[in-house]
Amino acid sequence: MPSTVRDMLATYPADLGSIDQAKLTRCIEECIACAQACTACADACLSEGMVGDLTKCIRTDMDCADICNTTASVLSRHTGYDAHVTRAMLQACATACKACGDECASHADMHEHCRICAEACRSCENACNELIGALG
Amino acid sequence: MPSTVRDMLATYPADLGSIDQAKLTRCIEECIACAQACTACADACLSEGMVGDLTKCIRTDMDCADICNTTASVLSRHTGYDAHVTRAMLQACATACKACGDECASHADMHEHCRICAEACRSCENACNELIGALG
Amino acid sequence: MPSTVRDMLATYPADLGSIDQAKLTRCIEECIACAQACTACADACLSEGMVGDLTKCIRTDMDCADICNTTASVLSRHTGYDAHVTRAMLQACATACKACGDECASHADMHEHCRICAEACRSCENACNELIGALG
Amino acid sequence: MPSTVRDMLATYPADLGSIDQAKLTRCIEECIACAQACTACADACLSEGMVGDLTKCIRTDMDCADICNTTASVLSRHTGYDAHVTRAMLQACATACKACGDECASHADMHEHCRICAEACRSCENACNELIGALG
Repeated sequence: MPSTVRDMLATYPADLGSIDQAKLTRCIEECIACAQACTACADACLSEGMVGDLTKCIRTDMDCADICNTTASVLSRHTGYDAHVTRAMLQACATACKACGDECASHADMHEHCRICAEACRSCENACNELIGALG
Repeated sequence: MPSTVRDMLATYPADLGSIDQAKLTRCIEECIACAQACTACADACLSEGMVGDLTKCIRTDMDCADICNTTASVLSRHTGYDAHVTRAMLQACATACKACGDECASHADMHEHCRICAEACRSCENACNELIGALG
Repeated sequence: MPSTVRDMLATYPADLGSIDQAKLTRCIEECIACAQACTACADACLSEGMVGDLTKCIRTDMDCADICNTTASVLSRHTGYDAHVTRAMLQACATACKACGDECASHADMHEHCRICAEACRSCENACNELIGALG
Repeated sequence: MPSTVRDMLATYPADLGSIDQAKLTRCIEECIACAQACTACADACLSEGMVGDLTKCIRTDMDCADICNTTASVLSRHTGYDAHVTRAMLQACATACKACGDECASHADMHEHCRICAEACRSCENACNELIGALG
């Protein structure tokens, strides 16, 4: 898919500080991709015949989508950077991705959308944790 | 303004657990009000003649608005409750409200919208911290 | 609930143009309240025993919540006002509120959360249509 | 960047109707990419020395980001499909992308982030209009 995350970062007109730009780029991209996968997975779960068994999955998907989208937005801003806010949001995102990845993984054998979504959550959780580590 | 936060909570058809419903209702309402105040404050700052002195304020407002809206959504869901996600999101919200309240407060003498927004942030930060305490 | 919509509007430092500020204030407040009601209704539906009969309602709630939140944000900004964007977003919001209000109303006899949510949607749809009319 | 838009669409368990899946996939991906570019462009504008000349650009970026994100979410749901809501949201998105693309294009000679963002807006506007045409 088209992505200008890296290009937009390269054109930021002020100092980006010492942040690891490769890890930042990857984390934004993972958050965006994970949010879409979670929104689609919640909707796919709604159309499964056994939707009654998937209500926790749908709820976790909705939380994870909202949290990943907000994290992508926070990470896309550099002006007036506040490490406390960035770190707290990354921790919330890693927590939501862990919860959603675990829940989706438990349905992965039955539902391919849950399998794909679980992978997106694992990958996003990993990118958040790597960026937290790089914040120092 | 119209609010059905309490009424919607009262009609939830399953068990809400031991959560303090008054604190939960207040926290959702504070998050929603703070998000709107921050969105409006960012826009008001943009139209100040001295916008160049307010860029950190605008950025912090935008983060706080996004984070408060997401926190309100997470708190409005009770199905498949996960205390880890709720707690992490409340901590991110309290952190963002603290940062935004501090930043807006530093402009409160000059700009009435910053004064009102700082109060909304303080009140929301307080509601988040009270709810974190009530989670046990 | 706390609301500083009117106060923030009053402190906007530049020209608001000829927009009807009472209708604008009401529309922002209705959008915010409707978004929360829809998020809560989607979650309450998920916990009903007959969730399989409510999947269209849950989906419509989710769309309506997202669209109302975005409309509230667009309406809370006045700098660089573009009537085309405001009008198109209000029309999308009125359309989503009509669809969600109809869907929730069809479950109102069975589920009190759907009855409350349908009223919030009707009220928000009305506020959007009144503001569209006032845009001239 | 990673994208599972197409894969998630392929695993949707119910009938997708007659919608053009290639156009739908492209439109979701363009909305997501445009939302991120607009969020980053608003922030980059904030850090330009001549931020006072970019306030309309920042505001238009913020609207476009919110509207593109909501459009991506609406398009990622298929359960209980309502063509009226989808069409109205696509029209709002095309309108916002046109406004933001025009505004950013007017600063493209001065600011590379505006040039990249204008291209993302043009591409997203085009994808929205193609999908509207395909809705019949």
